[in-house]
Amino acid sequence: MKIAILGTGAVGQTLGAKFLELGHDVFMGSRTTDNENLLGWKEKTGGKIGTFDQAANDSEILFNCTNGVNSLDALALIDKSNLQGKILVDLANELEFKDGKLKSLASSDNSLVQKIQNAYPDSKVIKTFNTLNVHLMVNPGALRGAHNVFLSGDDENAKSIVSGLIIELGWEEANIVDLGVIETAVGPEMFMAFWVTLFASGKFGDNAMYNINIVK
Amino acid sequence: MKIAILGTGAVGQTLGAKFLELGHDVFMGSRTTDNENLLGWKEKTGGKIGTFDQAANDSEILFNCTNGVNSLDALALIDKSNLQGKILVDLANELEFKDGKLKSLASSDNSLVQKIQNAYPDSKVIKTFNTLNVHLMVNPGALRGAHNVFLSGDDENAKSIVSGLIIELGWEEANIVDLGVIETAVGPEMFMAFWVTLFASGKFGDNAMYNINIVK
Repeated sequence: MKIAILGTGAVGQTLGAKFLELGHDVFMGSRTTDNENLLGWKEKTGGKIGTFDQAANDSEILFNCTNGVNSLDALALIDKSNLQGKILVDLANELEFKDGKLKSLASSDNSLVQKIQNAYPDSKVIKTFNTLNVHLMVNPGALRGAHNVFLSGDDENAKSIVSGLIIELGWEEANIVDLGVIETAVGPEMFMAFWVTLFASGKFGDNAMYNINIVK
Repeated sequence: MKIAILGTGAVGQTLGAKFLELGHDVFMGSRTTDNENLLGWKEKTGGKIGTFDQAANDSEILFNCTNGVNSLDALALIDKSNLQGKILVDLANELEFKDGKLKSLASSDNSLVQKIQNAYPDSKVIKTFNTLNVHLMVNPGALRGAHNVFLSGDDENAKSIVSGLIIELGWEEANIVDLGVIETAVGPEMFMAFWVTLFASGKFGDNAMYNINIVK
């Protein structure tokens, strides 16, 4: 598939490299085209690079890997026609830290991804992967035992395409939990406050290599 | 131990009955002493009943099992001297539902239990058990495989006493995760938004008999 990776941080770099490895056509977009991460990623992987808008223009499916507090601003740099009708997968978290402590989730009654879907009603917006470390996104087998990934979105066909990509990344279908419509993403977004307290407890290692399994 | 159960809903009734079974001295408190749940619980279990204040006066350790949106009002009915120096275990969630959908967590930067600790600085406040169904609190073996319960609180000795009670209820010590100081409880409180979306997805049964296991 023609995949746009929006954002050049660890999530975008790792996920983009893995999609290239899997044989997809990956275009990484950034605010500016002279940014070091972007140039370094191209050199390392051979993937295509450019602006957010160029990446979107080149792709059928977009992964928002920007920092959640900047995501709406980043998406606004894309010509709307380049988002129209496309699948937009949002992996971001809109968390605010003060003094090294989690002080608030920027939005508690209106998830980031809901705001994105509202801003781009003609895009098929899906929330997934915001609940775990990127190294687990691309290598779920790194943990012992089953653990889950979650999906929210209004478009069933888009969800099924995104599920397919998640399975390509190494996930078992049985561990992908479809929570329902996009509104349900408030759950996994607020979960991040919990994830952060787990990390800060020091009980789960320094590398954030942990995830949850729903036991029933 | 002399245990006060504040609140007469399913959580208070089930937990209070279990603590009686385990040989503790349990006093259930309510806003009014003619409430049906309270009288029914006394008839069924033989436990002591009375007002919130009478329950607190009679006990060394209090379990707040009131609805989180009313908890501060309920605690305000207790004479402060009856809370002074005692362990106050908060199990509540301050969630607001509109039209059957989760719309907000009443507090995202200041957890309910933090507000309780601030209001009663001389009490040893502990957050636990807010992340799961009461039937799992008293019967963790009902699920197949390990799953976790979380603790937050500033007083180490109080946490160790509460851990001891959790173990009496059937939990393995290895599955009790001490997250740290009371501030960390914002994590498990915000987790509830996620718990609710899991429940609403219909993927985990109608009886809310599920919990999470942290896999690392």
